[in-house]
Amino acid sequence: MKETFTLWWDEALPGIRYIDQTLLPAEYAIAGCTNVDRLIAAIQRLEIRGAPALGVAGGYGVALAAQTCSGTSPEEFSRDVRHEAGRIRESRPTAVNLSWGVDRVLARFLAAADAASARAAALAEAHAIATEDTRCCHAIGDYGATLLPDRCTLLTHCNAGALACSSWGTALGVVRSAVEAGKTVKVIACETRPLLQGARLTAWELARDGIDVTVITDSTAAHIMRTGKIDAVIVGADRITGDAVFNKIGTYMHAVCARHHHIPFYVAAPLSTFDATRTEQEVTIEERGRDELAEIGSRTLIPDGVPVKNYAFDATPMELVSAIITEQGIIRPPFDISALLSRTASYNEP
Amino acid sequence: MKETFTLWWDEALPGIRYIDQTLLPAEYAIAGCTNVDRLIAAIQRLEIRGAPALGVAGGYGVALAAQTCSGTSPEEFSRDVRHEAGRIRESRPTAVNLSWGVDRVLARFLAAADAASARAAALAEAHAIATEDTRCCHAIGDYGATLLPDRCTLLTHCNAGALACSSWGTALGVVRSAVEAGKTVKVIACETRPLLQGARLTAWELARDGIDVTVITDSTAAHIMRTGKIDAVIVGADRITGDAVFNKIGTYMHAVCARHHHIPFYVAAPLSTFDATRTEQEVTIEERGRDELAEIGSRTLIPDGVPVKNYAFDATPMELVSAIITEQGIIRPPFDISALLSRTASYNEP
Repeated sequence: MKETFTLWWDEALPGIRYIDQTLLPAEYAIAGCTNVDRLIAAIQRLEIRGAPALGVAGGYGVALAAQTCSGTSPEEFSRDVRHEAGRIRESRPTAVNLSWGVDRVLARFLAAADAASARAAALAEAHAIATEDTRCCHAIGDYGATLLPDRCTLLTHCNAGALACSSWGTALGVVRSAVEAGKTVKVIACETRPLLQGARLTAWELARDGIDVTVITDSTAAHIMRTGKIDAVIVGADRITGDAVFNKIGTYMHAVCARHHHIPFYVAAPLSTFDATRTEQEVTIEERGRDELAEIGSRTLIPDGVPVKNYAFDATPMELVSAIITEQGIIRPPFDISALLSRTASYNEP
Repeated sequence: MKETFTLWWDEALPGIRYIDQTLLPAEYAIAGCTNVDRLIAAIQRLEIRGAPALGVAGGYGVALAAQTCSGTSPEEFSRDVRHEAGRIRESRPTAVNLSWGVDRVLARFLAAADAASARAAALAEAHAIATEDTRCCHAIGDYGATLLPDRCTLLTHCNAGALACSSWGTALGVVRSAVEAGKTVKVIACETRPLLQGARLTAWELARDGIDVTVITDSTAAHIMRTGKIDAVIVGADRITGDAVFNKIGTYMHAVCARHHHIPFYVAAPLSTFDATRTEQEVTIEERGRDELAEIGSRTLIPDGVPVKNYAFDATPMELVSAIITEQGIIRPPFDISALLSRTASYNEP
C-alpha cells in the first residue's frame, strides 16, 4: 500500500506543505503556508485536521515561527516565538496533540544556545514528531490488526486515517495493517455531519487504496448494528482523559449503540493523545459556527433566524470503551492509563 | 396558533394543491397536480411526504384518477381507476397510510352505482380523510400534551408536523397543543440526513409558530441526552406493526440512546398508521438513491465510485417505546394494539 503523507516541511518555501482537506474529494490540492497567521487559519478552517496531524502541525508551526520571527535581542526573539507558539496552541481547544506538539518543539527551541541553533533544533524536533507519528500509526495498526477477525466489517466515524495523521492513520491504520496482513476488511464510513469528513475523506483515502468502503448517514449506524452486520466499531481520538475519550461529535452515540448491540468499541490513538491527569470536566468541547450546519455551498438548509448547537466533539466515558489501541500495545478496562504512561515515559521525553 | 394546511383539493384545477416540501425553507411554493403521473412523481420526489399526509394524498389520488379516467364501459372505467390506484399505492413502500388512504377511497368508488356518483363518492371520502386527519392530530396533540411537564425540552427527528399531515401534526401536534395549553416547550430538532426534513421543515414550521426550536446534527442527540437537557424524545411513525415502529432512519438510534439515558421515548401517530396484524419482517424498508447522500446542490460529498446504503426508514422494537399517543388515547407497554384497534374499529369504518 502506498504511503500518503498529509503534511510536511518544504525547505524550498520555506514552510509547511499540506493536502487542503476542505477541497476533497472534488479536488486534490497541495497548499503551502509560510507564516503563522496562515497556519492558524488553515487549522481553524480544517484545511489541516485530525488530532495526530495537529500535533505535527503544532510542531512545524513553532519551527515556522522560529524561522519568521527575528527580534532585536535574544530575549525579544524568544518572547516573540513563545507568543506565536501560544497563538498556535490556542487555535483549537479540544485535541490535546496540538498543544503537545507545540510544547515539545518550543522546549527544544528555548533550550538552544543561540538563534541559529534554536531554529535548527525546532525544525529537527518537528521532523522527529512527524517521523514518530508515522511509526506510531504503523505500530497502532499492527497491534489493532490482531483484534480483527478475517472477513470482518468495521464501522468508523469521521476520519482517523492518513489524512488525520502524518500518514497511514490510527483507526484506518488498523484497517490498512489488517489488509496488509492478508485479512479481508470492509469499512462502513459514517458521513460525519456537519463537515462530512467520513464521506469526503475516509471514503476518498480508502477507495484510493482499494479498500472496500460504503458510506452511510450517521444515524444509519444503529440500524445496521441491529442487523448484525457490524463486527466492531473503531474510531480515533482527539484527547483521552483519565475518564473519557473525546472524539468527533457522534462518537458517543456509536459507543452507546455498540454497547446495546454487544459490539466491541475500539479507540485507536497514539500516546500523544492522552491527557490522563485531567478529567472530562476540565476539557473544553469546541463549539463551531452556525454556517457549518445551515449551509452547504449556496444551499440554505436551515431557515434564517433558527439557532443551532454545533458541538465539534463529544466525550465517551471509559465504561463504554472495549479497548484502546496505542503504539505501545492494547489497553483494556479498567484502563490504568497512568501506569501505561509511566511505563512508556521515555516515549514523550526521548 | 394559525392552522397551516399541507395539501387539499382545488376544484378550480381540478386536482391536488400542496406545499412543495423540497423547496423549503428557501422557498414557500404551492404546487398543483392534475394527473396521477404527476402525483406519483410528487410522492417519490418527497414534494409530498409524511405518513398521514400520504394517506390524504392517496385518497385524493384515487379521486383524481376517478376524475381523469374515462373508459368506454363501466367495467373499463373501474378497471382503469383500480389500475391507477394500484400505481399510487406502490409509489412508496413503507408508510402504510398511503395504501390505507388509497384503499379506503377506492372501496367507496367501487361501491357506487354509476360513474358520476363514483367520482363524487371518491372525492367525498378523500375530503373525509383530510378532515379526520386534522381532527386526529388535534386529539393526538391534546392527549400527548398531558404527558409533558411545563418548561420541558423535547427532542424530535425528521418532521412529524403540520407538513407531514393535513395540518397541526402528530409529534409537533403534541408540541402545539402543549403550547396552546400554556406550557413552555423547547424543541431540539435533529436535522435528519440525508434530506434534512428536521432542519428544513420542522425548524421552519415551529419558527413560523413562534415555538423555540434549535437544530442539531443527528449524531449530537446522544451527547445532549447525556448532559441531562432532554426531557423526552417524541417522533411520528410511518407504520406500526405488532412488534415495531417504522419511522425515518435514525429513529432507532434515538430510541436506543433514550433508553440508555432513561429518557421517555414517545411515538405520536394516528390509528391509520397501525398495521398491527403484520410483523416487522413483513415490511419493506425503502432504499433510496445514492445521490441523496452524495450530492447537495452542485456539491459532491462522496468520491465517485464509492457506494452508499441509503435506507429511508428503520424499525424500533416495541420494548424501546415508552408510549404511543393516538387519537383514541395513550397506549403503553405491553401495547395491546389489536385490542385498541378492535375497540375503535368504528374509526376506520365509519
